[in-house]
Amino acid sequence: MKKLLDYQVGESIDLYLMIKQATKGITTKGSPFMTVILQDKSGDLEAKLWDTTDAHVETYRAGTIVRVGGDIHEYRGKNQLRIKAIRPAKEEEGVTIADLIPSSEKSKEVLFEELMAFFFEMKNPQIQRITRHLLKKHETAFKTYPAATRNHHDYVSGLIDHVVSMLNLGKALADLYPSLNKDLLYAGIILHDVGKVIELSGPIGTQYTVEGNLLGHITIMVNEIEKAAEELNIEGEEVMLLQHMVLSHHGKEEWGSPKRPMLKEAEMLHYIDNIDAKMNMLDRALSQAKPGEFTERIFPLENRSFYKPTFE
Amino acid sequence: MKKLLDYQVGESIDLYLMIKQATKGITTKGSPFMTVILQDKSGDLEAKLWDTTDAHVETYRAGTIVRVGGDIHEYRGKNQLRIKAIRPAKEEEGVTIADLIPSSEKSKEVLFEELMAFFFEMKNPQIQRITRHLLKKHETAFKTYPAATRNHHDYVSGLIDHVVSMLNLGKALADLYPSLNKDLLYAGIILHDVGKVIELSGPIGTQYTVEGNLLGHITIMVNEIEKAAEELNIEGEEVMLLQHMVLSHHGKEEWGSPKRPMLKEAEMLHYIDNIDAKMNMLDRALSQAKPGEFTERIFPLENRSFYKPTFE
Amino acid sequence: MKKLLDYQVGESIDLYLMIKQATKGITTKGSPFMTVILQDKSGDLEAKLWDTTDAHVETYRAGTIVRVGGDIHEYRGKNQLRIKAIRPAKEEEGVTIADLIPSSEKSKEVLFEELMAFFFEMKNPQIQRITRHLLKKHETAFKTYPAATRNHHDYVSGLIDHVVSMLNLGKALADLYPSLNKDLLYAGIILHDVGKVIELSGPIGTQYTVEGNLLGHITIMVNEIEKAAEELNIEGEEVMLLQHMVLSHHGKEEWGSPKRPMLKEAEMLHYIDNIDAKMNMLDRALSQAKPGEFTERIFPLENRSFYKPTFE
Amino acid sequence: MKKLLDYQVGESIDLYLMIKQATKGITTKGSPFMTVILQDKSGDLEAKLWDTTDAHVETYRAGTIVRVGGDIHEYRGKNQLRIKAIRPAKEEEGVTIADLIPSSEKSKEVLFEELMAFFFEMKNPQIQRITRHLLKKHETAFKTYPAATRNHHDYVSGLIDHVVSMLNLGKALADLYPSLNKDLLYAGIILHDVGKVIELSGPIGTQYTVEGNLLGHITIMVNEIEKAAEELNIEGEEVMLLQHMVLSHHGKEEWGSPKRPMLKEAEMLHYIDNIDAKMNMLDRALSQAKPGEFTERIFPLENRSFYKPTFE
Amino acid sequence: MKKLLDYQVGESIDLYLMIKQATKGITTKGSPFMTVILQDKSGDLEAKLWDTTDAHVETYRAGTIVRVGGDIHEYRGKNQLRIKAIRPAKEEEGVTIADLIPSSEKSKEVLFEELMAFFFEMKNPQIQRITRHLLKKHETAFKTYPAATRNHHDYVSGLIDHVVSMLNLGKALADLYPSLNKDLLYAGIILHDVGKVIELSGPIGTQYTVEGNLLGHITIMVNEIEKAAEELNIEGEEVMLLQHMVLSHHGKEEWGSPKRPMLKEAEMLHYIDNIDAKMNMLDRALSQAKPGEFTERIFPLENRSFYKPTFE
Amino acid sequence: MKKLLDYQVGESIDLYLMIKQATKGITTKGSPFMTVILQDKSGDLEAKLWDTTDAHVETYRAGTIVRVGGDIHEYRGKNQLRIKAIRPAKEEEGVTIADLIPSSEKSKEVLFEELMAFFFEMKNPQIQRITRHLLKKHETAFKTYPAATRNHHDYVSGLIDHVVSMLNLGKALADLYPSLNKDLLYAGIILHDVGKVIELSGPIGTQYTVEGNLLGHITIMVNEIEKAAEELNIEGEEVMLLQHMVLSHHGKEEWGSPKRPMLKEAEMLHYIDNIDAKMNMLDRALSQAKPGEFTERIFPLENRSFYKPTFE
Repeated sequence: MKKLLDYQVGESIDLYLMIKQATKGITTKGSPFMTVILQDKSGDLEAKLWDTTDAHVETYRAGTIVRVGGDIHEYRGKNQLRIKAIRPAKEEEGVTIADLIPSSEKSKEVLFEELMAFFFEMKNPQIQRITRHLLKKHETAFKTYPAATRNHHDYVSGLIDHVVSMLNLGKALADLYPSLNKDLLYAGIILHDVGKVIELSGPIGTQYTVEGNLLGHITIMVNEIEKAAEELNIEGEEVMLLQHMVLSHHGKEEWGSPKRPMLKEAEMLHYIDNIDAKMNMLDRALSQAKPGEFTERIFPLENRSFYKPTFE
Repeated sequence: MKKLLDYQVGESIDLYLMIKQATKGITTKGSPFMTVILQDKSGDLEAKLWDTTDAHVETYRAGTIVRVGGDIHEYRGKNQLRIKAIRPAKEEEGVTIADLIPSSEKSKEVLFEELMAFFFEMKNPQIQRITRHLLKKHETAFKTYPAATRNHHDYVSGLIDHVVSMLNLGKALADLYPSLNKDLLYAGIILHDVGKVIELSGPIGTQYTVEGNLLGHITIMVNEIEKAAEELNIEGEEVMLLQHMVLSHHGKEEWGSPKRPMLKEAEMLHYIDNIDAKMNMLDRALSQAKPGEFTERIFPLENRSFYKPTFE
Repeated sequence: MKKLLDYQVGESIDLYLMIKQATKGITTKGSPFMTVILQDKSGDLEAKLWDTTDAHVETYRAGTIVRVGGDIHEYRGKNQLRIKAIRPAKEEEGVTIADLIPSSEKSKEVLFEELMAFFFEMKNPQIQRITRHLLKKHETAFKTYPAATRNHHDYVSGLIDHVVSMLNLGKALADLYPSLNKDLLYAGIILHDVGKVIELSGPIGTQYTVEGNLLGHITIMVNEIEKAAEELNIEGEEVMLLQHMVLSHHGKEEWGSPKRPMLKEAEMLHYIDNIDAKMNMLDRALSQAKPGEFTERIFPLENRSFYKPTFE
Repeated sequence: MKKLLDYQVGESIDLYLMIKQATKGITTKGSPFMTVILQDKSGDLEAKLWDTTDAHVETYRAGTIVRVGGDIHEYRGKNQLRIKAIRPAKEEEGVTIADLIPSSEKSKEVLFEELMAFFFEMKNPQIQRITRHLLKKHETAFKTYPAATRNHHDYVSGLIDHVVSMLNLGKALADLYPSLNKDLLYAGIILHDVGKVIELSGPIGTQYTVEGNLLGHITIMVNEIEKAAEELNIEGEEVMLLQHMVLSHHGKEEWGSPKRPMLKEAEMLHYIDNIDAKMNMLDRALSQAKPGEFTERIFPLENRSFYKPTFE
Repeated sequence: MKKLLDYQVGESIDLYLMIKQATKGITTKGSPFMTVILQDKSGDLEAKLWDTTDAHVETYRAGTIVRVGGDIHEYRGKNQLRIKAIRPAKEEEGVTIADLIPSSEKSKEVLFEELMAFFFEMKNPQIQRITRHLLKKHETAFKTYPAATRNHHDYVSGLIDHVVSMLNLGKALADLYPSLNKDLLYAGIILHDVGKVIELSGPIGTQYTVEGNLLGHITIMVNEIEKAAEELNIEGEEVMLLQHMVLSHHGKEEWGSPKRPMLKEAEMLHYIDNIDAKMNMLDRALSQAKPGEFTERIFPLENRSFYKPTFE
Repeated sequence: MKKLLDYQVGESIDLYLMIKQATKGITTKGSPFMTVILQDKSGDLEAKLWDTTDAHVETYRAGTIVRVGGDIHEYRGKNQLRIKAIRPAKEEEGVTIADLIPSSEKSKEVLFEELMAFFFEMKNPQIQRITRHLLKKHETAFKTYPAATRNHHDYVSGLIDHVVSMLNLGKALADLYPSLNKDLLYAGIILHDVGKVIELSGPIGTQYTVEGNLLGHITIMVNEIEKAAEELNIEGEEVMLLQHMVLSHHGKEEWGSPKRPMLKEAEMLHYIDNIDAKMNMLDRALSQAKPGEFTERIFPLENRSFYKPTFE
């Protein structure tokens, strides 16, 4: 069935959608209106509701499922939705939030199982214990959070999806370059972004928390490793090296790592993270472009447009 | 009495000095020699010992007190000492290390007392408890460590000297700008560099530890605050804000702070730290320059030379 | 009494306000309108007047006092005023411009007296004579100009307010670091921005003059010192050092100083200027934020948002 | 058998070595000497020959095999060789250049065979034809050249060694991210540095040619692709995309690519190149470091030192 | 006769204009409209057509000549045209495209003749043959293309106009600095931007081609020189030096030159290109400004405004 | 007759030379020596005098003419002179300083006459009066100073040589771009570096003065224009524009101009200055290189080496 982002400019839609975000506004001339972001599994689009009342504001909140009729038009190079009809979905219509939010292709349980399998290739007990302890402590959130608020893996269970993809890439690298220490590399991959479960507000309508703003997921996670080691009575270099892996994974001071990588595995963790994030962004942008044309500019890829070849 | 740095180029010396650092070398033509850095309270100078033997290496180690005769000469714009006679000091000559190492002008006990007085101006019990706890935990090292391996306050008890000077400046600012929160500001000043007692190796012959290299004093201290709060059962915003104060005190990501200051007091902490360090460097460099001339280039001040006016 | 910036979004106002700025416009569809910035002592807000005539343009000029009824609404994260009724104030209503423009808390006379008191701590006659001469020459403007067109101390008598605040901070520093030369430091603080009285157009509706654009207040002031010295028949290093203080007070070439500070006092002048400007911006931004929230982004503070703690 | 780089400071050697580079010098006091770089398969070290004559200059040229006795000493943190005895090797001693120059672990024939196998996974005939044509044209040089004059893969057959390693990594990525076009990716990997066979002077004593300096291997190779397409009568997007792959593989303008990657495969080529080069540099530097210590600073890795953990 | 850009804000026009660009849009409230850019020889202005139909879209395409009545108004600091009446021009009205598009002042034939005269001052036969060959190959396009899509010489025959102006400047330089090689300098000037005839789509409605985006005019032209040399059987340094001239003419890697200039003539080519482009931009911007005022900000001149003196 | 820089490595010399600079040194082992820079019209070379006495220091001062025998050798890629015999020249040998210092090819009188001729093309009386006044005031120094302490035009009368060369280039530009105002352009060229006569110490053994360091030639000259205008009772825009020309001629804040050019003529002045300085550096460097080779790296040209073609 055709989804929201499958429609072209000029086409009409009649779809169940979820309100991802709703903001009140007032036109410069004084009439109230609302800006809503509507989504289904294919992605999201912005729309306006004009001449709205307080009742509309009550009804059309983030998280509400609605049935919407309208057309797709283009505004400053981006598609928008022009709403012609909108009403809240009725319970008996049987549409649930899970039907409308994008999520990883594999279920979080499958992903978690795949992740756990990587422990079989590890041998250092201290590193394993700390990693397992922190996974267990944050398991629920870790399985449902996105990896980011936007740009890449920004959907429900996006974080674990990203981590499992990175583990597979890590394994390929460790096979090609056998001098890499798998304990450090895999544990680093698993833990590097777990701090996001405290930095961000939750899987839906994700925002930065105050702690996220003031400390950031890197520092949060280094603290977590420190406390885990204390709780588990683990001392020794492993604790410090795991902290360094997390600390340095942004690669440069100006990208938020207070220390640059000083372990071979930390250097590789930074690359693996980058490649997996960029492949995710590129696949998404190229899926919207036609052969022989360029994608929209992709801001986190230095605002570049990418070309989609005419042959496969 | 005239000290090492009081002598001009061309003058002869006959002084007791301590060997700060000793390194073996071999000339490109193959003769062994030693490079020694000799110091007294006024500062240090480099010298060479030529045609040395294994016995010399044994005798002239870092920490040894020696009596040295020689002249001051200039080499590439820096003064050096040319040794004409050197022998280890004898015990009966009564010279001790404490006579020869530079240190803060006030004793560490006096400095600590001055520091403790600032708690009377604080009122938030959580912030006070964490700060006192960490001071107590690291008291011995905190009272003797330098603030840095070189550049500023790089002498025994330099760290507490720097902190007390910063507290006085902090108090002046808080008086002029009463909206500043003294609890956060004073605690931030006291704690900001305590992590150096783990980052650095000790008060003499100071070097970076492995943990110092891989984690850095900022991260080390944020961990310490986390553990202190846990141990003292303190929860709430104060913990996070203290961590942010420490985290952001370098002011910019490229200077090692994973987050820029987002508290007014954190912004001021960064300034206070800077001003006190720079005044220390400037006073030291200008004390070696003559009126109407420029100082040597000061690397951490963007390699600038400063002018010493001819009038006072 | 509640002032303009004390009203929240959704509240109605009925206030006397001054038109700070008025600009004609034509909608893309061709109807004339006006954008007016209205202010009282608490600050200013933008509003639109729709379907305006030439008569409106005549009536609603910058400097006019008006009585305005309307509501506060939000537009792109900033508050705006929606005007429902507007008319020029009548003379018998007794509202004056002085009632409506923000200004320093202390009167300019009090500030000037405070400033003059600092001369008692100076001892170098040349420096004093040049400084007094230039103060006298530009006294009227110096007492009424803002320190900047926006960002900090951008109100009537903002310049002298900023300077007196800096002098107090300078005195605190000179007390803590007695090696600082008070003559240079105080004269540098007093003179550093006097060139703004030529760079900017006046205390109200402040804009850059052509000379301000082409030469800038730094160069203008260095010229003024040159001419003052000539007129007063003063020669010697003091003239050059005062010029260097002014020249270098932006701290870096890329910030408009053709030379970086090469005097200890010049380095400190740059810090004092920065701290006082930043405290002014931070206090202003934080006064509009609620505890537990972040301020708007502050552009000249590298676009950062600052957090307002929940405790005092 | 112990090789040149296996000896520690203070140990004596007696080895056959090849002169990699020989430079005449004159001491500031006027005596002639020679600086020679001596190597065997383990790497190279610098040494001095003092008081040399014209006959020495004749005898000890680059490429000469010599028997050397001497000791290892340290000079400014780097090991050097102090020569005590040196003479040209005699033919009957049976030492050949191939015994003394470092080279890839696998033979160039094996590497070439491995490379050719990747064509079986490609399907686009134009891309294959151009790639095979250029490989054939430059086959001899391509099989023996180093990938660089220093830093990574800077040994005989280093270029093909680097390319085969990159192909294996490319295959792993293409398996994990199936949207990658293997034709473009593999051809890009194979061709990206073939221009080095014109940019550099040869497999031994490698230097930049004039053409290498003025045009660079990127431009040289884009020209080669243009001419190959013309010769093979191939038109169409494939030619342009292959040129873009080569053109953009340095990733940024400031690193010598006139265009940044605008193809997903070009973006990945840049990453693959980077990872393989960095792993080569890291493995080499870490092999010289002891557990629990840091490597020498590695210039092309932003001058960082890397830590070698104490556990495996 | 008064032309489009000669009218001031508030004046009415009645002119024949050409539609340079036409874009469909839909207001956020859903009504279709068109944005058209209208031009005559004096330049272009934007205008809107409201409530448009499919028939309008058909009628008002790029390239259509129309008769337009309306007024000039200002929008965000830029002039716009408010259309009151518009209709396609009739054939019998006798207005042609050539009457309405800006173009070089001299005809392309005159310019080409002037250009060819420079060959008389050249003496190296290889350089001349390659240059003549490429001129002949691309003559038609070279004579009609603009030098850029906007900013400078962005009109029909702008490229040759720019080149001839550069040649005159090159001749002046070669006269003042006789060590400059005229063969390299003139050939470099003539060829440096010929690649634009492939990078850009044509003389009117100019856009980047896919090849232009992926390879760029610099690389395209280096390829052309390579092929020309092959076709003409020319070998030797001249080919490489011509390629280097073209390659390096942007002056820095970050501006798209993979090599910086390494020939004196290449360094000068970069300057000549810059001066001629900037004089063109400055003359254009200053012609729109009044004496005693500043121009609009000029983006490619680092967004500066320039002052127009009150005296001549 | 063969001059100092005409000799190759390995050749012997016997020449009269002038000591340009003489510095005492002490070897690390304690023997006194001197480093002297010796020059004739062709340029300068460094040499050492070993085992020197106080008498040598007296005899071999800067400015002394000596007769020297020795050989040219190479040290770290630069030629040096090895002195075998040296003695002060005798008066009766008739060698004067003027015979040995490099200077402009034309005499300073001829240059000054050429410069004065440019006033005939100027028409604005205010600009002429200020320019003539300042030329007259500084005429003696202006005619003998170098344009810089090194890099370009760093010889006696180098400043006026540079200015006259720039005027010729300025005239060529004004002829090609007639919209340039010759009054501003020529006066800007003449005055732009006159401040160097105060920034630098003199024509021989040139160093920065204290005023040069603290204010810089740009600010010095802007002051001079201010005072000239006052003295001549000239008011009006011309004064400000001349100051802006001087102020902005370094082109960017980071290069020491507190304002970027905002006049067309100021923009061109920056280019003219650059071109003339670079041509001077390039001609000098290329004169020392052989055809088919690269020059030494030229630091102020971003450390590039330039290629000297094999053909003319």
